[in-house]
Amino acid sequence: RQSLKIGMLPADGIGREVLPGAKAAILALGSSIPKTEFIDLLAGFEYFTKTGTALPDETVEILKNECDCALFGAVSSPSRKVTGYSSPIVALRKKMDLYANIRPVKSVSVNPEGKPGVDLVVIRENTECLYVKQETQTVGEHGKEARATRLITERASRRIGELAFKMALERPRKHLTVIHKSNVLSITDGLFRETVRAVPTLPGVDGKYDDVTVAEQLVDSAVYRLFREPEIYDVMVAPNLYGDILSDAAAALVGSLGLVPSVNAGDSFVMGEPVHGSAPDIAGQNIANPLAAIRSAAMMLRHIGYGDGANRIERAVDSVLREGKILTPDLGGKSKTSEVVDEVTKRI
Amino acid sequence: RQSLKIGMLPADGIGREVLPGAKAAILALGSSIPKTEFIDLLAGFEYFTKTGTALPDETVEILKNECDCALFGAVSSPSRKVTGYSSPIVALRKKMDLYANIRPVKSVSVNPEGKPGVDLVVIRENTECLYVKQETQTVGEHGKEARATRLITERASRRIGELAFKMALERPRKHLTVIHKSNVLSITDGLFRETVRAVPTLPGVDGKYDDVTVAEQLVDSAVYRLFREPEIYDVMVAPNLYGDILSDAAAALVGSLGLVPSVNAGDSFVMGEPVHGSAPDIAGQNIANPLAAIRSAAMMLRHIGYGDGANRIERAVDSVLREGKILTPDLGGKSKTSEVVDEVTKRI
Ligand SMILES: CC(C)[C@H](C(=O)O)[C@@H](O)C(=O)O
Ligand SMILES: CC(C)[C@H](C(=O)O)[C@@H](O)C(=O)O
Repeated sequence: RQSLKIGMLPADGIGREVLPGAKAAILALGSSIPKTEFIDLLAGFEYFTKTGTALPDETVEILKNECDCALFGAVSSPSRKVTGYSSPIVALRKKMDLYANIRPVKSVSVNPEGKPGVDLVVIRENTECLYVKQETQTVGEHGKEARATRLITERASRRIGELAFKMALERPRKHLTVIHKSNVLSITDGLFRETVRAVPTLPGVDGKYDDVTVAEQLVDSAVYRLFREPEIYDVMVAPNLYGDILSDAAAALVGSLGLVPSVNAGDSFVMGEPVHGSAPDIAGQNIANPLAAIRSAAMMLRHIGYGDGANRIERAVDSVLREGKILTPDLGGKSKTSEVVDEVTKRI
Repeated sequence: RQSLKIGMLPADGIGREVLPGAKAAILALGSSIPKTEFIDLLAGFEYFTKTGTALPDETVEILKNECDCALFGAVSSPSRKVTGYSSPIVALRKKMDLYANIRPVKSVSVNPEGKPGVDLVVIRENTECLYVKQETQTVGEHGKEARATRLITERASRRIGELAFKMALERPRKHLTVIHKSNVLSITDGLFRETVRAVPTLPGVDGKYDDVTVAEQLVDSAVYRLFREPEIYDVMVAPNLYGDILSDAAAALVGSLGLVPSVNAGDSFVMGEPVHGSAPDIAGQNIANPLAAIRSAAMMLRHIGYGDGANRIERAVDSVLREGKILTPDLGGKSKTSEVVDEVTKRI
């Protein structure tokens, strides 16, 4: 690549305060990555309240036609039902076919509350399950009845399963836990479970995954055991909603959602996204933790081939955390978002 | 009542080892409750493997026609898809219209791992959501496609909401958190949220719930905050699957699933059930924690009007826990199931 175009979608709340930090970290890499252009793009709940659309077509078109990758901030949720509103991040994942949400969660020594020994990756299927948003409402004998469809396909389960085995193979422990609730959802979660477990028997795999050990767990007991003995997990693969819940649960173990990055990845595009939300309660105060967004930028860069740059950013973040002096309030510190960003960029 | 008939459904694994403890605790109440008869009833995965049915009609009929209440043990889940099998506990909840699953979770001082300050009740809707088990599978262009229906009705949401407000009002803090994911499921979870929130405006309520403060949370951040600041919760009300996950998560905070009781309650029947599963890994060793089952028996007795008996059982359990000498291995102890049962019954 001669140059790099990164779509920037800060969206709502602290999304707008942490994305500049990610940008600063990327810029701090200087000439070790191609000349980078940042393209500001519109999306979000606030944008919806102004225009009636949460994700303008133009944003999707620019992402598809002009950008090499993207960073998303966070989106606010309406506090009451709002007709016509639909989450732009859910829509983006589907429209860009970003079928995998990869969420690594790792303890840092800094936080006294964080449990030691957490080093796992949640691989969340990103396009289906209840997130297909096929909902209807009717009126029956006893009042309103609402129904949602939960879709699980062999195709989506297989590609997320393949990715999960691939990631497990790359990690030292090579362990994979398949999350489901097939004791209740024998057909949908049964399909997910069987399809993921069958990945090693696919044509062409040829024993490639022989070193991966596979376990499985019901989602309720997975959350229980995640809290009690997080060290048992390495790679976890889960349908969309379980992955959503599990990654938040895992984030709690390492001390703050403000530390946990992710990428939404497809075969031809990747979008970094901190796992935290728009946090309206602290928005506008310059105290949001920018590290999840900065780490998401690193993951995104690695995904498109700039592993060295990603490593430099991650090492800088780790050293700031290890030192434990310049931290935002969620980690018990007193520093501002901008001070943490400065400290990280200085070390890149 | 002249006499009390309690249906006993141990089902699988440690369910069979903990239910005798519950029976012993009830018997230890002596003449302070009516003469009690225990009726052993069949159900479970093992029963299914022998007979092809997991919940015989006879069991349901005896429960309906002869029993005043019941105790359920735990049910095993098949490790592979088994045609024709369907969870008997899910079926029982529906067939007996036990629409509320009430799961109190409270810290005890004994466990060093347990977070202090947990004192909450998860009120889980028990009859619908994805547990309606309406699943289909078709074959599309790209392979198998499975669909499940998630049903949320106004009626079920209202009755669980009414119960939640009632329980919140009875507790010192009078705080209620409504759990949903209406940022994605705006119609189904939207209906749940709006219906529960509207309970105080129902005809006849007349300001009864004015003292209850209501908050709400998305299920993913509810799990996150449950782990980080469990003290913010008092009563939580949730659709079926979220309630399943949340109650296991809360159990992790107090040190062991082996401590957490529940009742499945309807307008005319109640069935106690420890929150833990059948734990095949420790079954048959006489080391399962009987306290969740014993506490479930107490909750069941309170529900049908024997509050004094319930208090006596609960005080005995609490004193064994506080003393911390006779504990099963899940709590770091070395005692057998039967030793814990003896210790509790001695103190009743
Ligand atoms: C904002 C919301 C739609 C989203 C989700 O549920 O996927 C968020 O919780 C996340 O985890 O990225
Ligand atoms: C065994 C299973 C069907 C059940 C459930 O999901 O309800 C269990 O996890 C529970 O919480 O009682």
